[in-house]
Amino acid sequence: MLEPSTDAAPSYREAGVDLATADHIKRRLKEIVEPTLDDRVVTEVGGFAGGYDLALTTDTGSVLVASADGVGTKVLVAQLANRHDTVGEDLVNHCVDDLLAAGARPLFFLDYIATGKLDSEVVLSIVTGFARGCAANAIPLLGGETAEMPDLYPVGKYDLAGFAVGSMIARWGASENRVRIGDVILGLRSSGLHTNGYSLARRIVFDIAGQQPGDGVPWAETSWADELLAVHRSYLRPVESLLRDDGLHAAAHITGGGFAANLVRVLPPGSSAVIDRSAWTPGPLFDYLATVGDVASDEMYRVFNMGIGFCLIVAAERANEIARQCQASGEPALTIGEVVAGEGLQWA
Amino acid sequence: MLEPSTDAAPSYREAGVDLATADHIKRRLKEIVEPTLDDRVVTEVGGFAGGYDLALTTDTGSVLVASADGVGTKVLVAQLANRHDTVGEDLVNHCVDDLLAAGARPLFFLDYIATGKLDSEVVLSIVTGFARGCAANAIPLLGGETAEMPDLYPVGKYDLAGFAVGSMIARWGASENRVRIGDVILGLRSSGLHTNGYSLARRIVFDIAGQQPGDGVPWAETSWADELLAVHRSYLRPVESLLRDDGLHAAAHITGGGFAANLVRVLPPGSSAVIDRSAWTPGPLFDYLATVGDVASDEMYRVFNMGIGFCLIVAAERANEIARQCQASGEPALTIGEVVAGEGLQWA
Repeated sequence: MLEPSTDAAPSYREAGVDLATADHIKRRLKEIVEPTLDDRVVTEVGGFAGGYDLALTTDTGSVLVASADGVGTKVLVAQLANRHDTVGEDLVNHCVDDLLAAGARPLFFLDYIATGKLDSEVVLSIVTGFARGCAANAIPLLGGETAEMPDLYPVGKYDLAGFAVGSMIARWGASENRVRIGDVILGLRSSGLHTNGYSLARRIVFDIAGQQPGDGVPWAETSWADELLAVHRSYLRPVESLLRDDGLHAAAHITGGGFAANLVRVLPPGSSAVIDRSAWTPGPLFDYLATVGDVASDEMYRVFNMGIGFCLIVAAERANEIARQCQASGEPALTIGEVVAGEGLQWA
Repeated sequence: MLEPSTDAAPSYREAGVDLATADHIKRRLKEIVEPTLDDRVVTEVGGFAGGYDLALTTDTGSVLVASADGVGTKVLVAQLANRHDTVGEDLVNHCVDDLLAAGARPLFFLDYIATGKLDSEVVLSIVTGFARGCAANAIPLLGGETAEMPDLYPVGKYDLAGFAVGSMIARWGASENRVRIGDVILGLRSSGLHTNGYSLARRIVFDIAGQQPGDGVPWAETSWADELLAVHRSYLRPVESLLRDDGLHAAAHITGGGFAANLVRVLPPGSSAVIDRSAWTPGPLFDYLATVGDVASDEMYRVFNMGIGFCLIVAAERANEIARQCQASGEPALTIGEVVAGEGLQWA
């Protein structure tokens, strides 16, 4: 078998790419990834691509749904705090929530990690987060790519991308829009910023307020790292069982563009959402960002999720029952607004 | 509808994220992406996720195959040459070739673009490359994410990730390994470096030799940008029709790890590949890199594809016929070696 050349100058290693470290990582990755696999996965870890047998999955339709995402500059908070095992979980949950918003339940996930210099511990910590997220959503980590890219990423910096494929369950998942005037909007709570608004949040917390990741927040016994790295929630548990319910007319994942843009995008032309902001309290993190950053309220709702990570648009006559079902699954659903004639978003 | 706040300080735009530019890009993206869609795509451009109806696709099995990839630091060559419309095509073809190597034909593709500051023309140029690659492989660009990440990527820099899903056709695609002692190895030519070895190639060409992307190469009327950005080939046309042929026992996409590692990974334990390097000429680009970079031959074969982008491992008694089929589809297949007892790779 060929061995790495020792007399070549420059070798690939000297050019910044360390294939031996890559091999070491590959072996340990396998140990982390394998527990997420089940008998639907028909390929071994480390092949050219991952295989997943749909015939061994029950409760699927013929329509596949796929989503690609990143976690934005939340990765920079992880790097600043030197805590790398949560952003992978963020990304799995972000992708799963996008699938749910398209009316699909998740089947499998793949990751992409790019870094300036492969650091085994960091990469394995990131993949541990991916695996934890996959396990929590009961999907395999079917494949991925870890790329060492000197000159693009500085040492110690990395970016992540994630891809999830699901099976469409909800009939509104395709182009038909079932949302009607009079529908009720239920909101499910977020755990924090999820994966959006981090450029502004980092500027306010770290630049304007001069905080460090390990410093305590003013309103709790937690650190800024804890608050800003709180894991993006997966809404699989409460939402999955509703996907076959005709009373659920649409769903919105509150992500890039904040609360405002993501709710509006699922409304049909001629309809508007009236939101009662007194129906919930965004929470102290959002209050802090608005106050310390001197950010106007409309801008806050345009950038951040404001404490609501996922919205369900439901038939008015079914709203109470669906809210009770959510509650029964451990997920309180807040009635935050309704669909009216008009355009865009209005505040009650 | 909510409008961007004008009195907030700092606004999200001032923090480096320009949602208005993002909206402009989204509109033009739609025009570029829509021609790649067909009636199997059941969602509109811009939803939370893309939907693809398997029931409208003929000739598929139940096993989905998925691959995630990047193009390595080939993106830095694109950025240096200010030529952004080919790396997307590279990435689609890279993913398609990974699926083929797993015995699958491609169904759809999604992209991830991350950059420090959204430049409409650059992003649209990148997506034009993705769309061209998707069209050439007859698959839809089903979705994607374009992320503006100030502080992680400098202005003018970007990274790309791609994700393709296919349907497994070849029976050897799952774990069963059909490769036997005596099998013949056919090689299909690459167009250049494809997407691997760019850290070393950039160091040799730009640092050691001091070349600029617009400078001419010594062996042809082309520039370094032309040579180094030559598009990663898709082997869909010659390979797709062979996936149901029992004479094809395995396939290898020559990618990260170079010619040596990728051929070895498809061999069963106890078997080795004997390769006759006199069966083909890698070409002047590889000669230049070895000479100017003073890179030993084994290292060259460990880092670069050396002129062979894809290998077919075929039953000896079918080798001539399969090579003729490739030739008939416009793809010359070179007989470059055979499978023997042993381990790893040997040179004839």
